[in-house]
Amino acid sequence: MYFNVQIIGSGKAVGSHVVESMELEKEMGVQRGWIEKATGIKSRYYVDIRKNESALSLGIEAAEQAIQKSGLSTEDIDCIIGANGSPMQAIPCAASLFQRELGLEDSGIRCFDVDTTCYSFPMAFFVAANMIANNIYKNVLVISSDAPSRTLDITGKEVKSLFWDGAAAFVLSESKDESKVHHFLLRTYSRGADFTCVKGAGTLKPPNDPNTLPEDNVFYMDGWKVFKAAVRYLPIFFNEFFEKNPYNRDDYKFIIPHQTSKKGIDIFERYGFTKEQIGNHLKHTETVLLHLFQCCFMT
Amino acid sequence: MYFNVQIIGSGKAVGSHVVESMELEKEMGVQRGWIEKATGIKSRYYVDIRKNESALSLGIEAAEQAIQKSGLSTEDIDCIIGANGSPMQAIPCAASLFQRELGLEDSGIRCFDVDTTCYSFPMAFFVAANMIANNIYKNVLVISSDAPSRTLDITGKEVKSLFWDGAAAFVLSESKDESKVHHFLLRTYSRGADFTCVKGAGTLKPPNDPNTLPEDNVFYMDGWKVFKAAVRYLPIFFNEFFEKNPYNRDDYKFIIPHQTSKKGIDIFERYGFTKEQIGNHLKHTETVLLHLFQCCFMT
Repeated sequence: MYFNVQIIGSGKAVGSHVVESMELEKEMGVQRGWIEKATGIKSRYYVDIRKNESALSLGIEAAEQAIQKSGLSTEDIDCIIGANGSPMQAIPCAASLFQRELGLEDSGIRCFDVDTTCYSFPMAFFVAANMIANNIYKNVLVISSDAPSRTLDITGKEVKSLFWDGAAAFVLSESKDESKVHHFLLRTYSRGADFTCVKGAGTLKPPNDPNTLPEDNVFYMDGWKVFKAAVRYLPIFFNEFFEKNPYNRDDYKFIIPHQTSKKGIDIFERYGFTKEQIGNHLKHTETVLLHLFQCCFMT
Repeated sequence: MYFNVQIIGSGKAVGSHVVESMELEKEMGVQRGWIEKATGIKSRYYVDIRKNESALSLGIEAAEQAIQKSGLSTEDIDCIIGANGSPMQAIPCAASLFQRELGLEDSGIRCFDVDTTCYSFPMAFFVAANMIANNIYKNVLVISSDAPSRTLDITGKEVKSLFWDGAAAFVLSESKDESKVHHFLLRTYSRGADFTCVKGAGTLKPPNDPNTLPEDNVFYMDGWKVFKAAVRYLPIFFNEFFEKNPYNRDDYKFIIPHQTSKKGIDIFERYGFTKEQIGNHLKHTETVLLHLFQCCFMT
């Protein structure tokens, strides 16, 4: 399998409110240096709600850059895929809200969302690649934008240390050079469905239901269980990934794991990749690759 | 464009709590007969939470039927797409929750959601068709399940009359006969993004934020504006739909509009279809075609 599809424009945006780990440590009452030691993260970017920043505004900022860099005009986009890791609102889909903010509310441009939580971006990318290869759409704008800082108030310290707000957007088109999507593999192990979750904000635990607790509405993570699951499933994943892949580990210039924590990134050295191959942007958080390519996981 | 893809199994489920329009009229303090006259709906099916019914349980009921009717075993499914109209919970995606309930938590079967609100099912169907045609997946299970009754408490009377709980599921595979997906068109007009919406339950208006109001967390609809938008955009939609379609209006045995209300269905007679062609299941609400095929719309 390969698809003659390439990225012809990309954009990124982060919240303007910089929060240093030191600041957060003071607020959470933990030892100075604890966060960077545990996670590798020095500072993070939150949306500033006084400036009307949100997942929506960050997504648009990234999308406008992506369109501009693609050399296309907004009207050339014939499909918008929203690929947020969590909803901006329950209805309608994020893509249609992005469409409106881009001033395309009467354009009719196709809008839909693809959701695999943290993995939404690569999955949306792959869905778009299938459609471009089948001549359904020509220029697909994929926008991934999240502002979890809006829901960190009563979450655990681990979550609070790791999460911040950013967006990335890409315009995808048929390749004009040798760029290709060579191989794609997704594996979902729902044994981990409760390891990272927001159990509320839907019809199972509706926000207005008196039985829904405030903690149901925020992100919960059991980092240790996620890590153990990764250790369990990653070898199986890589075996399968390379089995039907024309390329070997050495052929990859970069692999970009889910940018969660230092530990969650360093683990890829166990699976035959060198330190130089493994993308790590934790210390340079302005590089919004959080959603770009993530190598497996628990959705 | 066509894809050699067919439905090899289907299933459906509804909530077990039957609510007659008469009952609802009494509760809402409106004239007897008002609901059926305005909407065409006699009765509706809500999930019974005392029996642990939910969008999740309905989805599984429909999925198990679909798999059984397909003649496949659960292990033959290699992709699950969640196509709910609104989230069951914010994280993870519905497909992974369905996977777990089907006892496939260690299977690794690919799971993702496709969301265009009411239109999620046909869009997910089309995404699956693209992937089956490209030999990515062989047997795709698409599940569409919603339980809006869980959030109807403080909504308007119109919404309360129209919405109820049901699920549909389909297994899609490569065609073994002349069945095909011949043509597909989606158009999104986000000018209508606020006509039907739930503004809460995401990072724009988080459930725990004191500025989020209870009414932000429930479905809002301005039925008149939706109807006017349909009248405005449908002729453009059909012109485009039939322009590149090998078939004409007469060739279709059935068209199945979004099963909203009598008025919203009868309108299709204006666009060159006969009464006999237009699917109308409002009086037979156990036929869960609500999400099956809908001919346009505002996402």
